[in-house]
Amino acid sequence: MIDFIPILKKYKPTEEQNQEMERTASEIMGKINSILERDHINARSLLVGSVAKCTNLASGDIDLFVVFSKKYSSREMERLGLRIGHEVLPQGREKYAEHPYVSGQLGERKVDIVPCFEIAPGTRIISSVDRTPLHTDFVLKHLDPEGRDQVRLLKLFMKAIGVYGSEIKVSGFSGYVCELLVIKYGSMLDVLRIFAALRGKMRISLTESEIKEFDAPIVIIDPTDLTRNAAAAISLENFSRMKINSRLFLSKPDKIYFNAEAAYVPEKYRERGTVMRIFTLERPDIIDDILFSQANRFRNIIVQILEEDGFLPISSEVDLSENIEVMVECKIEKLPATRTHVGPPVDAQNAMDFIRKWSGDKSVLGPYVCGDRLCADIPVEMRDLEQVVRERLKGFIIGKNIDRYKENMKIIDPSRSNEEFLVLGKFYSKTLPGLPP
Amino acid sequence: MIDFIPILKKYKPTEEQNQEMERTASEIMGKINSILERDHINARSLLVGSVAKCTNLASGDIDLFVVFSKKYSSREMERLGLRIGHEVLPQGREKYAEHPYVSGQLGERKVDIVPCFEIAPGTRIISSVDRTPLHTDFVLKHLDPEGRDQVRLLKLFMKAIGVYGSEIKVSGFSGYVCELLVIKYGSMLDVLRIFAALRGKMRISLTESEIKEFDAPIVIIDPTDLTRNAAAAISLENFSRMKINSRLFLSKPDKIYFNAEAAYVPEKYRERGTVMRIFTLERPDIIDDILFSQANRFRNIIVQILEEDGFLPISSEVDLSENIEVMVECKIEKLPATRTHVGPPVDAQNAMDFIRKWSGDKSVLGPYVCGDRLCADIPVEMRDLEQVVRERLKGFIIGKNIDRYKENMKIIDPSRSNEEFLVLGKFYSKTLPGLPP
Repeated sequence: MIDFIPILKKYKPTEEQNQEMERTASEIMGKINSILERDHINARSLLVGSVAKCTNLASGDIDLFVVFSKKYSSREMERLGLRIGHEVLPQGREKYAEHPYVSGQLGERKVDIVPCFEIAPGTRIISSVDRTPLHTDFVLKHLDPEGRDQVRLLKLFMKAIGVYGSEIKVSGFSGYVCELLVIKYGSMLDVLRIFAALRGKMRISLTESEIKEFDAPIVIIDPTDLTRNAAAAISLENFSRMKINSRLFLSKPDKIYFNAEAAYVPEKYRERGTVMRIFTLERPDIIDDILFSQANRFRNIIVQILEEDGFLPISSEVDLSENIEVMVECKIEKLPATRTHVGPPVDAQNAMDFIRKWSGDKSVLGPYVCGDRLCADIPVEMRDLEQVVRERLKGFIIGKNIDRYKENMKIIDPSRSNEEFLVLGKFYSKTLPGLPP
Repeated sequence: MIDFIPILKKYKPTEEQNQEMERTASEIMGKINSILERDHINARSLLVGSVAKCTNLASGDIDLFVVFSKKYSSREMERLGLRIGHEVLPQGREKYAEHPYVSGQLGERKVDIVPCFEIAPGTRIISSVDRTPLHTDFVLKHLDPEGRDQVRLLKLFMKAIGVYGSEIKVSGFSGYVCELLVIKYGSMLDVLRIFAALRGKMRISLTESEIKEFDAPIVIIDPTDLTRNAAAAISLENFSRMKINSRLFLSKPDKIYFNAEAAYVPEKYRERGTVMRIFTLERPDIIDDILFSQANRFRNIIVQILEEDGFLPISSEVDLSENIEVMVECKIEKLPATRTHVGPPVDAQNAMDFIRKWSGDKSVLGPYVCGDRLCADIPVEMRDLEQVVRERLKGFIIGKNIDRYKENMKIIDPSRSNEEFLVLGKFYSKTLPGLPP
């Protein structure tokens, strides 16, 4: 097996980094608490996230909750939460998860100040954010320092193979899922052994209670809320990636599986003897989770158009790190000038209308009989890929945040460009990092 | 309605032509009878076909049967039949239907001398050829001279729209079916009215007896053998053509529907903005019905290859009037240089083998995970349409009569040729002759 000590040394926060984080966190919590006192607000500040759970990597964010009494209405809570956030982080910007919150920078460190309600374990759920303090308590109680390092290693492995992060853009494993897996199986290597040996679905509970039925490839029951699948965000593809990479790593261990810098970088076109186009839109200033749904819809609509119009799309990718970039690869660049239009059966009421409509100059050949139907070979007006996408996109509503950028869509043929594209970097990075022995 | 008198005048045999045909037929029958007497063969000669039924067109053949006593074995009957045929038609050539027979020319007129067995109506069938004398009797009994002219007009209509002929190459309406239809409905126009009004299948019997179940779009019970569908040769497409052309003609009568010279002629390529190739083989000297099955198989195999390899065939045609010509039209001339090879699920036993096999230089991209499977984008070796067909055809057996010509197959790009091709003429002639008002 490879040596994990240098890996932990590289990515685990040092004593100094931990002190710095604690200082920053205390400072913010002090500020919040004095505002709460000053304004007679019935709430408390709470450090959450990986820092609170002591499973953070050196580069981690600081996540702070302002936990409100349930006597407040949702609207009141959100209003007060934002006011506090802006007062503490004057340069911060409003973002939106289940509630709006303020996100900013303090020195080098990213800080989020998120409002939520107080709840007790087992209480009826109010929002997923409200559950987070319960997760912190559970993880602190069940992981010792060695276990926390095992969580860090598992996170690094997942980052390197591209399956870490529960945001929609990634649809992978959350930090909390990593923690639950290590609590259940004891170590990072044990977790990998479970995935490597697994065939089909995964069903895990940390308690004795029966597992509720979920229609998902991977189900990990949240021990703080037995009705919830903590692994619901994980896609079949990322679950599959985790399985095969675990098998690959265990069959031939290699440091490459713990290279957390493995995220993709912009790359140039590589010749593939296919037809490739990159469609770019300016990125509106909204959070990834909302934007990604729309960007993905944008990709799906382009693929659908190319599919329906016969350009034979074979692959596609979407990236929204900087701009919205959609890459689509097709087999055909220009459609044939003639296509067979299949009409009604010869028996149909409207058979004569079809013949009248497609006779003479209207057809290249026909109308004629094919099987029991009428057909006509008719000219194709729009044959060029870019023209077809531009024209047909007009008929689609993509999403309220990006529709207004549609007009300025750029279409780039990367084989005729020297530019580098993030979406190409993402596309190429699909290749599995390692090899079996 | 249009005037049918000039049409009949043009295509119905004149008094002189009839006398000439009768003379020729008598002469041949005389020769046959003297051979039968000389060699003590228990058989008789019989004039059959449209000449015997008085429904012949001016250009029709003379069909003569030699009807053998059932005391002969099949082999004996065939041997004697051929000997007689060769003696009567010294220039004649052997052909093969259900029994071998001799086909030759006498002056301008084509003559077939076909051996068969004597049977009585309702007797157990021996062969379909044996049934023909019964058909002659039935038609002579049920059609008066006016009815015979109506049959001639119906044949001319069917020839003009390309559905006349029960040979496999055409898969259309036989002369006997035309006769039965006129016997049933009274006139050519009445037959057209029936087809024009018809929706779905056709089920006809000329007797009161219940119709046997046949799995065919059109069933016309043979009145001389109630277990037989006389329309079994008719394809769904030709049945549909008959329906729509009947509707078209009745809605706007036009002489063009009785132009029996409408058969296709060789034609040059017309630009369609697609990829077209003509595959030609030398024509072996066998009868059409047998050759057509093999030529059609040849066409189907080429289309299958092009389909499987992703050239997207959109139409095809086969002609064997002179050479065997197969035309195939595709959307793609050259395949992309890369294709996605979908491998086993990540869970599969052989997942590691797939990764090992397609790693490094073997793939353009991958192996990677797509859904729950492994994939690899791999290089395509053969990309050219002609090369792919030539190479892959080697793995197919087409048929014993044309396999040996496969080596000398020519592939022609008609868009780069000034030649005329029968198969193109056939392809273009699909267009319906007329228009609705």
